[in-house]
Amino acid sequence: MSSSSSTGPQCGKMAAVVPDLPSGPLDVYRTKASFNWKDMVLFLEGEDVYTFKQHVFSTLENDPLFSRQPGEDLSIEKRRELTFLRVKQLFRYNFLAQDDIEANPWKFVVFNDCLSMYDLSLSAKFFLNKAMFGGTVANSGSERHIKFVQDTEDMTIFGCFALTELSHGSNTRGMRTTATYDPSTQEFVVDTPDFEAAKFWVGNMGKTATHAVVFAQLYTPDGVCHGLHSFIVQIRDPKTLMAMPGVMVGDMGKKLGQNGLDNGFALFCNVRVPRANMLSKTGDVTPDGQYVTPFKDPNKRFGAALGALSGGRISICRLAQDNLKLALTVAIRFSATRRQFGPRDSEEIPVLEYQLQQWRLLPFLAAAYALDHFSKSVFMNFVEFQVGQMMKDKSNRQVELGRELHAIACSMKPLGSWTAQRGIQECREACGGHGYLAMNRLGDIRDDNDPNCTYEGDNNVLLQQTSNYLLSWLHTKHSDGVGTESPLESVKFLHDFNKILETKFTATTMEECVDSSVLLAAYKWLVCFLLKESQRKLAQEKASGKTNFEANNDSQVYYCRSLSVAYIEHTVLQRFHDFTCDQNTPDDLRPVLKKLCSLYGLWTLSNHMATLYQGGYFSGRTPAEFVQGAIVNLCSQLKDEAVALVDVIAPPDFILNAPIGKADGELYKNLWSTVMQSSNVMERAAWWKEFCADKPVVGSLRAKL
Amino acid sequence: MSSSSSTGPQCGKMAAVVPDLPSGPLDVYRTKASFNWKDMVLFLEGEDVYTFKQHVFSTLENDPLFSRQPGEDLSIEKRRELTFLRVKQLFRYNFLAQDDIEANPWKFVVFNDCLSMYDLSLSAKFFLNKAMFGGTVANSGSERHIKFVQDTEDMTIFGCFALTELSHGSNTRGMRTTATYDPSTQEFVVDTPDFEAAKFWVGNMGKTATHAVVFAQLYTPDGVCHGLHSFIVQIRDPKTLMAMPGVMVGDMGKKLGQNGLDNGFALFCNVRVPRANMLSKTGDVTPDGQYVTPFKDPNKRFGAALGALSGGRISICRLAQDNLKLALTVAIRFSATRRQFGPRDSEEIPVLEYQLQQWRLLPFLAAAYALDHFSKSVFMNFVEFQVGQMMKDKSNRQVELGRELHAIACSMKPLGSWTAQRGIQECREACGGHGYLAMNRLGDIRDDNDPNCTYEGDNNVLLQQTSNYLLSWLHTKHSDGVGTESPLESVKFLHDFNKILETKFTATTMEECVDSSVLLAAYKWLVCFLLKESQRKLAQEKASGKTNFEANNDSQVYYCRSLSVAYIEHTVLQRFHDFTCDQNTPDDLRPVLKKLCSLYGLWTLSNHMATLYQGGYFSGRTPAEFVQGAIVNLCSQLKDEAVALVDVIAPPDFILNAPIGKADGELYKNLWSTVMQSSNVMERAAWWKEFCADKPVVGSLRAKL
Repeated sequence: MSSSSSTGPQCGKMAAVVPDLPSGPLDVYRTKASFNWKDMVLFLEGEDVYTFKQHVFSTLENDPLFSRQPGEDLSIEKRRELTFLRVKQLFRYNFLAQDDIEANPWKFVVFNDCLSMYDLSLSAKFFLNKAMFGGTVANSGSERHIKFVQDTEDMTIFGCFALTELSHGSNTRGMRTTATYDPSTQEFVVDTPDFEAAKFWVGNMGKTATHAVVFAQLYTPDGVCHGLHSFIVQIRDPKTLMAMPGVMVGDMGKKLGQNGLDNGFALFCNVRVPRANMLSKTGDVTPDGQYVTPFKDPNKRFGAALGALSGGRISICRLAQDNLKLALTVAIRFSATRRQFGPRDSEEIPVLEYQLQQWRLLPFLAAAYALDHFSKSVFMNFVEFQVGQMMKDKSNRQVELGRELHAIACSMKPLGSWTAQRGIQECREACGGHGYLAMNRLGDIRDDNDPNCTYEGDNNVLLQQTSNYLLSWLHTKHSDGVGTESPLESVKFLHDFNKILETKFTATTMEECVDSSVLLAAYKWLVCFLLKESQRKLAQEKASGKTNFEANNDSQVYYCRSLSVAYIEHTVLQRFHDFTCDQNTPDDLRPVLKKLCSLYGLWTLSNHMATLYQGGYFSGRTPAEFVQGAIVNLCSQLKDEAVALVDVIAPPDFILNAPIGKADGELYKNLWSTVMQSSNVMERAAWWKEFCADKPVVGSLRAKL
Repeated sequence: MSSSSSTGPQCGKMAAVVPDLPSGPLDVYRTKASFNWKDMVLFLEGEDVYTFKQHVFSTLENDPLFSRQPGEDLSIEKRRELTFLRVKQLFRYNFLAQDDIEANPWKFVVFNDCLSMYDLSLSAKFFLNKAMFGGTVANSGSERHIKFVQDTEDMTIFGCFALTELSHGSNTRGMRTTATYDPSTQEFVVDTPDFEAAKFWVGNMGKTATHAVVFAQLYTPDGVCHGLHSFIVQIRDPKTLMAMPGVMVGDMGKKLGQNGLDNGFALFCNVRVPRANMLSKTGDVTPDGQYVTPFKDPNKRFGAALGALSGGRISICRLAQDNLKLALTVAIRFSATRRQFGPRDSEEIPVLEYQLQQWRLLPFLAAAYALDHFSKSVFMNFVEFQVGQMMKDKSNRQVELGRELHAIACSMKPLGSWTAQRGIQECREACGGHGYLAMNRLGDIRDDNDPNCTYEGDNNVLLQQTSNYLLSWLHTKHSDGVGTESPLESVKFLHDFNKILETKFTATTMEECVDSSVLLAAYKWLVCFLLKESQRKLAQEKASGKTNFEANNDSQVYYCRSLSVAYIEHTVLQRFHDFTCDQNTPDDLRPVLKKLCSLYGLWTLSNHMATLYQGGYFSGRTPAEFVQGAIVNLCSQLKDEAVALVDVIAPPDFILNAPIGKADGELYKNLWSTVMQSSNVMERAAWWKEFCADKPVVGSLRAKL
């Protein structure tokens, strides 16, 4: 039963701003939920943010330019045109002015959520121009670049961010585009040595961008290479959208998803750009060709130049959850209304009643809640870090905050994007054939999410950054007996490393395992164990005569990689656990949040059970039995909450754009009416004469073998 | 080094029929392989089948109708037209006449492989007409239906198979379409009670089919329902392709993949079909309206009617491997030529050299080999079973063969389709951004493979059939102390059930674990343990007062489901192990096949390690360490074989149709030339004026909140 009354009049009043959902077949589950979903929305989002989101959503819904048909079959060209026109319209709506963002940076993320839930291509196109181009220019440039930022803000120009090359992605230091300073004209000559060094995969570059931030190896007239720096290069004429002389720029063509975004390539043939176009924050060239930089160590300079990527990785984890939320909304509403089999032939039950279906979907629902909270809290840490940077905080704490954030960002992106990718695929399969119909959007959601596993660092490669951080933490600790600071407390427990390694699993009933502090204790042991094992493995590989490069590569599988995964899962679980225990969490919402927290922890921990046994933390039959039993039990308890939990994270039907996931739960009516309104549904095929005439003579082309 | 000379002159002579591959960057790996890939191809395929495949492949390559551009952006309508025209052309080629199939039924499967590797929509469209319509009519009908089979053979008519309804898929007994016999006109009146009972998902029905095998509840004039029967219903006029009166037939629209195939729906409004159109093998209605059937038990009749589905499931497992082979070809050739990072900045190494990349891809390569062999051997069992059916073999062995095949088919489809789905996704990610370009086909391969997890039975639902078989086997064994026959020997070892449960893991070195008989012993214990646990769990649920329906549902996760998976993995491993030990396996191919077999076994077994520990088969640190160490070691040993192993399973470049997967290994040249030849690559966007004029006034549409 709904329990809004228990949260007092204020919450009840606030909840009034949340519109009711249409009643229908889903009400059976909605009325069984232990909490009021409106209270949950307002608690998690806050009224201000909730109102802002609904404003964005309803504005899009009311603008015919944003109208669309579920499952429509649009050409790439049409998708790109529509996405461009919609971005243009966003300039007119100007939902978030700079002031609004400064007043509440979180709204920037929320706005991104809104656009992403509508269409990831739209948010990508919008933010690549505004943040990746405009933001990079603003952050990496100086006063002399302000004009480019202003021109971006009113669409005088349109930007892109050109780092990746055809033959180099992960290994950014291997980039081969050059920028050679010519003091005679005070220009840089930007050049692509061969097509393998073409800039590649650049979002907005395919058809739209007029300007690019181009990363190139900087050469001064003395022939010295100063490493990768960034330059503003004009690639198209804003008056005609024709390519500038010497710039060979084009569209990469169709991708698996995000086809509204025009990813492109560019080759530069000795293109001259003014000296002033060098983004000079981390290094500059004087008019006469001297290189000057505030950094003494080139590695640090490079690190600072790529610093923006940490923010990107945090956002990607969040974006992936936007996708997962959409997919779960579709799959759980479908499961609550799709009936198949039953105790008797005459009575079929919703597939959500089956243990298997619950187990397939509900852990992902728990993950969506856990990772939603996590990405929000890490974003707040990132804002704190950025403020420190702006204030030129040189404290040790600020340095360590940066390193810890990097370790978190490099593992939360893999965790978030993989969880979403697997979850969306499970949702697709859990909806059976109906999940395979394009109109129900699960394919688009999955395909749009997929590159989250790749861009801004391949997931597997990124995880190495995290294990490096943990290993170096342990190394420092062993060297000085103190260890370094952990401003975000994600590695604080490692101070008890040896003590933790002596602990064992002590739960004696399945019920005890539902307590997430039991799970956190297990995770702490797991991280310590994997850290110790990784260190041992590395030492062993080195002792066998391997170089650092080889030893490191050969210690990834089952060691460093597992370590990074366990570390970030523990961090996510710890933060979600703290959140459920927080005194500000309303009492009527706490029980269901605690269940989600436990389910998430049990489910992720269950992937590590072999290691828990191997290292002796688990022993005997019962630990695995308790963990598995608790998962299945929690799933069963949460199945009556699932529809309400989805109502909390679901966007309006217009944004969701999936007939089988609509809030009214009229599964077949919605599906059927969408099928019937598609184009050419019952019309004879254009090629009908090919069937009716010119019948094939069987074997007429058969070869004599 | 290649070792073709060691296999003697005959093999050398045969290998001459296999054309050389173009030399290029992949040669570095090719020359390191321990075996001659041509010998492997001919050993696995046989010269006759190999020659047939190459003939099909080159015929398609030489016919402009089959030409295509990698990553081309075609509308659904265009895809459907092209697929239809290509099917029509296949009638002319008539690659396999009925005689050829009867002489060697395996060629039918191989032909399907060829078409599927070219385009799964093409093979689906072709086989749904020929086998699912034509074959069903031939097998379920009688002499009076021969005309329909003949008309299908020369494309006078075009068929489809209509079982699934909008609201019923898995639960076939819940179908609600009716066929009521009217003795006054000697016709059946086929009727769809409401749109939820519309036939749905029917391949070929969308635009092409003129006739359908429609499953409907049969009513005789006495008002008795005799359950689901099948009827040939004409749905379109072959002269015009217009719908027949009373038939509302249409196209379901876009799907996630297989868009060359027109899946459709149909509603029948009291459509009258002649009495003769009832497919009468399992039941018939006399002219005056009496129901007659050779089956006494309606369940048996229903089972026989759906018997064809076992063959379908075996094929799907194979189809999925066709997809996995394509994806592995792309990803492994890419990994062998893509260089990133290295021991020094100046020297980058192929990503295939990294442990992580090997571990991501090579177990799937081993799986492709294991499942290829498995699907072939099970197909041969199925042929044996069908021959028995045709011979009206009523022996107990034939009955048990049918049951065992059913148990295998219901678990090999899930195993095969999931392995492929996960493997393709891993290949996509392992190719980084280039894997996300549509032209490299990994998206299409994944999307085309995806429904293999769903059709002919949702994977999770199907697995229950297998565990039911195993539980009933154990039940019989406990009841009579003897147990039933196991003609395929997949459950023979269960006779030693109790003895096996007493065994423990005894390997004392990592090297011992590489012996697949060690892995088979572990699997035998695992199956017995899970079988015992599942039985215990079921008993416990029933003892707690649950009905059979509830108890069964609540024993799936971690029990019955895991049991079915372990059973089929064991069966696959056993057959592959036997194959590598077979005396007919050439000595120069045996070592690499044995490594593949061990890697597959270790890799699948590693997913069950928690259970192995839980049940006490594993104890202490070393077992998990051995298993993991052996996996990583085998990956490292197989990385130099991987390119040659892929050459064995790869189709010609034209069929593969993925620039980064071409046999010459010229990764960037192939990718680049494909990009440059795509349409409108460097052309200005059609909507360029929308950028250049009518600039948005920022905030002009901003609402005052």
